[in-house]
Amino acid sequence: MTKPLRIGMVGYGFMGRAHSNAYNRIGNFFPELGYRPVLQAACARDREKLARFASTWGYADIETDWRKLVARPDIDVVDICVPNNLHKDIALAAAANGKMILCEKPLAMSVAEGEAMVEAVERAGVPTMVWYNYRRLPSVSLAKQLVDEGRIGRPYHYRARFLQDWTISSDLPQGGAALWRLDVNAAGSGVTGDLLAHNIDTAMWLNGPIVKVMAETETFVKQRLHQETGKVEPVGIDDACIFICRFQNGSMGVFESTRYARGHKALKTFELNGADGSVMFDLHEPEYLDFFEYRSKESGQKVPSHTAGWRRIHVTNGEHPYMSHWWVPGLVIGYEHSFVHAVADFIQGLETGKPAQPDFRNALETQKVCEAVLRSARSGRWEETGVAL
Amino acid sequence: MTKPLRIGMVGYGFMGRAHSNAYNRIGNFFPELGYRPVLQAACARDREKLARFASTWGYADIETDWRKLVARPDIDVVDICVPNNLHKDIALAAAANGKMILCEKPLAMSVAEGEAMVEAVERAGVPTMVWYNYRRLPSVSLAKQLVDEGRIGRPYHYRARFLQDWTISSDLPQGGAALWRLDVNAAGSGVTGDLLAHNIDTAMWLNGPIVKVMAETETFVKQRLHQETGKVEPVGIDDACIFICRFQNGSMGVFESTRYARGHKALKTFELNGADGSVMFDLHEPEYLDFFEYRSKESGQKVPSHTAGWRRIHVTNGEHPYMSHWWVPGLVIGYEHSFVHAVADFIQGLETGKPAQPDFRNALETQKVCEAVLRSARSGRWEETGVAL
Amino acid sequence: MTKPLRIGMVGYGFMGRAHSNAYNRIGNFFPELGYRPVLQAACARDREKLARFASTWGYADIETDWRKLVARPDIDVVDICVPNNLHKDIALAAAANGKMILCEKPLAMSVAEGEAMVEAVERAGVPTMVWYNYRRLPSVSLAKQLVDEGRIGRPYHYRARFLQDWTISSDLPQGGAALWRLDVNAAGSGVTGDLLAHNIDTAMWLNGPIVKVMAETETFVKQRLHQETGKVEPVGIDDACIFICRFQNGSMGVFESTRYARGHKALKTFELNGADGSVMFDLHEPEYLDFFEYRSKESGQKVPSHTAGWRRIHVTNGEHPYMSHWWVPGLVIGYEHSFVHAVADFIQGLETGKPAQPDFRNALETQKVCEAVLRSARSGRWEETGVAL
Amino acid sequence: MTKPLRIGMVGYGFMGRAHSNAYNRIGNFFPELGYRPVLQAACARDREKLARFASTWGYADIETDWRKLVARPDIDVVDICVPNNLHKDIALAAAANGKMILCEKPLAMSVAEGEAMVEAVERAGVPTMVWYNYRRLPSVSLAKQLVDEGRIGRPYHYRARFLQDWTISSDLPQGGAALWRLDVNAAGSGVTGDLLAHNIDTAMWLNGPIVKVMAETETFVKQRLHQETGKVEPVGIDDACIFICRFQNGSMGVFESTRYARGHKALKTFELNGADGSVMFDLHEPEYLDFFEYRSKESGQKVPSHTAGWRRIHVTNGEHPYMSHWWVPGLVIGYEHSFVHAVADFIQGLETGKPAQPDFRNALETQKVCEAVLRSARSGRWEETGVAL
Repeated sequence: MTKPLRIGMVGYGFMGRAHSNAYNRIGNFFPELGYRPVLQAACARDREKLARFASTWGYADIETDWRKLVARPDIDVVDICVPNNLHKDIALAAAANGKMILCEKPLAMSVAEGEAMVEAVERAGVPTMVWYNYRRLPSVSLAKQLVDEGRIGRPYHYRARFLQDWTISSDLPQGGAALWRLDVNAAGSGVTGDLLAHNIDTAMWLNGPIVKVMAETETFVKQRLHQETGKVEPVGIDDACIFICRFQNGSMGVFESTRYARGHKALKTFELNGADGSVMFDLHEPEYLDFFEYRSKESGQKVPSHTAGWRRIHVTNGEHPYMSHWWVPGLVIGYEHSFVHAVADFIQGLETGKPAQPDFRNALETQKVCEAVLRSARSGRWEETGVAL
Repeated sequence: MTKPLRIGMVGYGFMGRAHSNAYNRIGNFFPELGYRPVLQAACARDREKLARFASTWGYADIETDWRKLVARPDIDVVDICVPNNLHKDIALAAAANGKMILCEKPLAMSVAEGEAMVEAVERAGVPTMVWYNYRRLPSVSLAKQLVDEGRIGRPYHYRARFLQDWTISSDLPQGGAALWRLDVNAAGSGVTGDLLAHNIDTAMWLNGPIVKVMAETETFVKQRLHQETGKVEPVGIDDACIFICRFQNGSMGVFESTRYARGHKALKTFELNGADGSVMFDLHEPEYLDFFEYRSKESGQKVPSHTAGWRRIHVTNGEHPYMSHWWVPGLVIGYEHSFVHAVADFIQGLETGKPAQPDFRNALETQKVCEAVLRSARSGRWEETGVAL
Repeated sequence: MTKPLRIGMVGYGFMGRAHSNAYNRIGNFFPELGYRPVLQAACARDREKLARFASTWGYADIETDWRKLVARPDIDVVDICVPNNLHKDIALAAAANGKMILCEKPLAMSVAEGEAMVEAVERAGVPTMVWYNYRRLPSVSLAKQLVDEGRIGRPYHYRARFLQDWTISSDLPQGGAALWRLDVNAAGSGVTGDLLAHNIDTAMWLNGPIVKVMAETETFVKQRLHQETGKVEPVGIDDACIFICRFQNGSMGVFESTRYARGHKALKTFELNGADGSVMFDLHEPEYLDFFEYRSKESGQKVPSHTAGWRRIHVTNGEHPYMSHWWVPGLVIGYEHSFVHAVADFIQGLETGKPAQPDFRNALETQKVCEAVLRSARSGRWEETGVAL
Repeated sequence: MTKPLRIGMVGYGFMGRAHSNAYNRIGNFFPELGYRPVLQAACARDREKLARFASTWGYADIETDWRKLVARPDIDVVDICVPNNLHKDIALAAAANGKMILCEKPLAMSVAEGEAMVEAVERAGVPTMVWYNYRRLPSVSLAKQLVDEGRIGRPYHYRARFLQDWTISSDLPQGGAALWRLDVNAAGSGVTGDLLAHNIDTAMWLNGPIVKVMAETETFVKQRLHQETGKVEPVGIDDACIFICRFQNGSMGVFESTRYARGHKALKTFELNGADGSVMFDLHEPEYLDFFEYRSKESGQKVPSHTAGWRRIHVTNGEHPYMSHWWVPGLVIGYEHSFVHAVADFIQGLETGKPAQPDFRNALETQKVCEAVLRSARSGRWEETGVAL
């Protein structure tokens, strides 16, 4: 009864693993879905490493040229897991071949590239999704649910961080398969595209469009050995980025990201404060959503002052988003599950005709904010984002 | 308008400081009360140290013989802050002189002593209080309020700990002014009377009488240099004590105390689980009470599963017990304030004729549990407490 | 190169899912191992449900009689995931057929049964393992590593809890596929075998043999509708159990488990206090291990008092147990991964000839403690465990 | 031996209470100091309320005209606890009378006013201090100690917040004794001068001068009833303020303050990330300082990766700043103690000739940052602060 969804994977890095795992688990944990991913072919230039990857994950075939992959008739979905500077060309070719496209984030190197991609896929009429996986952690999805249920009320403040500490050493090189994120030619930007893009996607999902931004960036280590050229080269990416912003709904935002926050590995946090309640999330403890209820939705009354407090919701009940597919209350799932949920939602979008988000068009809005952030960091002024959600 | 409440302090140690501070602050923070403590005289054997103590805290006079102090006509209240083996004699003499008595915990060396003390003060008709100060931390008082409001429902479990780590070194001596708590002749017992007595007092206040106990104790360091004899002497106190118990209401209890829990300085905790809710307290973070609401008192309904979670109530609102006397929401008070509240409540008891608790009779019940615990540790069997609250 | 390890699964419940998932993921996350699990056949009485289970998880075949399953020549490993009252017979038959056996915990209904099982498998010379999966959470394994590195020093205290709240309602029935854990005939005991057994296994792994125990149990709901008989029947299991114990190394222990602790879903915790350091774990936040270092292993010196504190180790680095197989620092894994690690370790045991623990013999020791606990709860006295690790 | 330090208090509000309490406790907790505060006279316009205040706190005399108070020969120290628009005139008059001056923060309504104040007190040669009390919480002082000990290393990031939620209701009026902080004419600014000034003072103490800022402010409730005029008036203060900044040492900063963050009462936090370590503070749990040690000062080596984690230092040991004056390890102090420490340090400054900080000159630098922040919020551009520490 289930139809195959034949995946053509481009790339075999960290995201290649995360996505392949997601495909492999759909059948076990979402058996009710009408499509079942099939690992049809994986593609990369390094044949030896690729073969090992394909064998580990169970890909039936391999390709070393993505142009061949995207043209194969036995592929339904092209999954783009390569550095950002390759997204556009692959996406355009895949669209031209009528393939569905799942693309790693950020969508593109620039808004211009992103617009070309949106145009191409909309012209081709192919379903798309960009892997902003964090929306699909149960606790993040629960935050969205609480907002939609009206438990937060008029929003005043949104704040988000993504703090890491892995690039402090100046001995760390740039470039190559493992460190392309430090090479501006491959990545387009540093923490803005790599980390803040996630935060911006979540923020606009929860709190609506960001209309203007004022940013500051820094590159603490000015040059690093480049693994491809073998020379010490200037570092072109932003090591850190902070921006203030305004949402269309009038609330204020502040975002910060860095790879120089000693002690934080992947501290992705957000908080939304409204007149009736607040929510807070921290990726280091993803099983929790912290919720402060000022006015009870159930009673319509203010919670008695002496009993009010931040609730640590342990997001592991069957009533919580996605959790009925997993274990029992109290038993946590982890990072990788957000990708499984993304695939499940993408499939559900195919079944229902209501596409999972963010698709390319939606992800383009995040790209606009990223670009305005970098523009503002250069201009030293407020910049409009032009977001049109 | 305010009447003086002339204090005769016996002792000048840690508790002597804590109580003196409490007396000194009533006028500033509870100016509405009808009595104002006056530091009339302090008493101890070491005249030099006593004089320094009296000067620091503002005692008008000193005495080196407690028998003289308790007989002075210018004393209204005798405050007993000396080692446990002196409580009974001083209390009996104070009662015979018609003095109100504030006695440090535990009440006595034994139930027999405690019964003599209760009989004496009741015969004399003098107001009394035992300094189980932790009841009067705002968060602990809030727990009592939540219980009284019916937010916990049928109780199933009570658990409490008091963990410290300051006696692990076998180089630490016993006895003398600073370390009498390690000398069984002065203290009567170890952690049972010193630490668990606090937990038992809180427990029976919140959850009713403990009717039977089963205990195990240990003395990890078998002998220590005695500071008074100058010789290495056997250690007679319990370094650690664990007991299981039953409350009259059918709930189960488990208590643990030790001075060998590396990393814990004064980790006094309790937790009560009921059918409708639970509360949890931790002395290391006394500004919080953790509360899990299963059934809302306001709506009578179960809290929606997806929004339920342990609430960290930051007990600093004006609506919280005692807090309207201090600062503003968010600003915390500390350990010493529990003693200020005790004095305030004792005074309010004098004004209203409804004595503050625990008085000697009430504290005797805690003594019974302590004694049953030590008896059980010796017998290896369940022991009845005989508590009659 | 990898050899197949053909699994015969008996049962399709919660554990059937958890184990099947573990088998399916070995190839992806532990590709270096020499054996690869193959889901050969699943077995249960209800053919329809079994077929659905087998299809979801990818079992090649089904059986409705476990006697047939254990005799199949195409099965290498029999995995016992059925109620406790069936463990012994299946294990004996599997052993007689020379199969390796992976058995859900607790090993058996009684020590006598367990001894028969140990004898059978040792006679047959088949590799075994009991699924005490929690040892293999990275943070729990890290605790073991810290102990083995000598960072804890002389142990004084061990405490553990496993608190749940899912059986408070007296409307919940007992018996049947979903609720056999409440039926004493199927489960043997309540929280003692279901929850405390986990805690005991972890405790003896970290802190050595438990030599005597003193316990108290309670059944709060005395009768429940039985789903198989259709009648209201007495409840024979323990709803709650508390025990005090002594370890062979002289440290004191206290354990508590219940299904009536409102607000706790699966709060499995443990803490070990030693002279040089302490560790603490909480299953609700399994990505953390809390560690207090009093004496630094590196310097041999006491950590300066003003910098000492409980460390929240976020157990997600490549240097942490098992974590190099997963994602990158900061990104958490979950409950199910402990089972994957168990399979990986079992396979590694096959490869190295050093069997993964706990095998049947080791798990029998946990059974002895459980039995002594229940015996003590009946006798009201201390009971020896007879553990011989 | 101790000399009296005769206090003339101007104001009787929240800060008047906090300071009076601090003066009253010096003798008890810092008896070794050479000066003892004496509550000589309190001053305010409302004679009735003033008399009550003076009686509660023990002031010997009252004045209703501050010009008389500052001229009294029996006053050594003038303590300015009135709205910000009165600071300058009182300070100038007090200086002209040769009085020492303790002034509530922020120093003034503007840099220009502040400069006049600095000039006046330096010309008069009188000791001064501004009540940036939070420096003197033991955990904040410990952060400074860790920085000074070189445990943080090259700084990369500083972030701070001060979040409250008490002005969300538009029914709250502005102006008058209780709500002058909402009236721009009395307060000069909103959260910038009231809350962020604290954060800026702490930040520059820990991390050096802030050289440029980029800010955004918001006034969510545009008009409020004014309690003095009786009319609905525009609200001139900033309800919220966010700014990005650069420190002279090259690190990046981000600050946020608001009174519209539902669920936060007085969430003053800061965090400093350096190459060798990080520290984090939260006023809601002031007994803790969180410290991540990457490189051990003691060994000079990197902390082993598998044992590294954020330490929750419970700042209650005798070895921690100020704590030897209070209780014993594990027992916490609170908000008000920071003022006691401020007085103790001020006195120690008098004794040693090394003035306690921040004095007026030092506090002027914070004023410069505040003013640059507000200027930037108007200009929408980066503004230099001109800080010259």
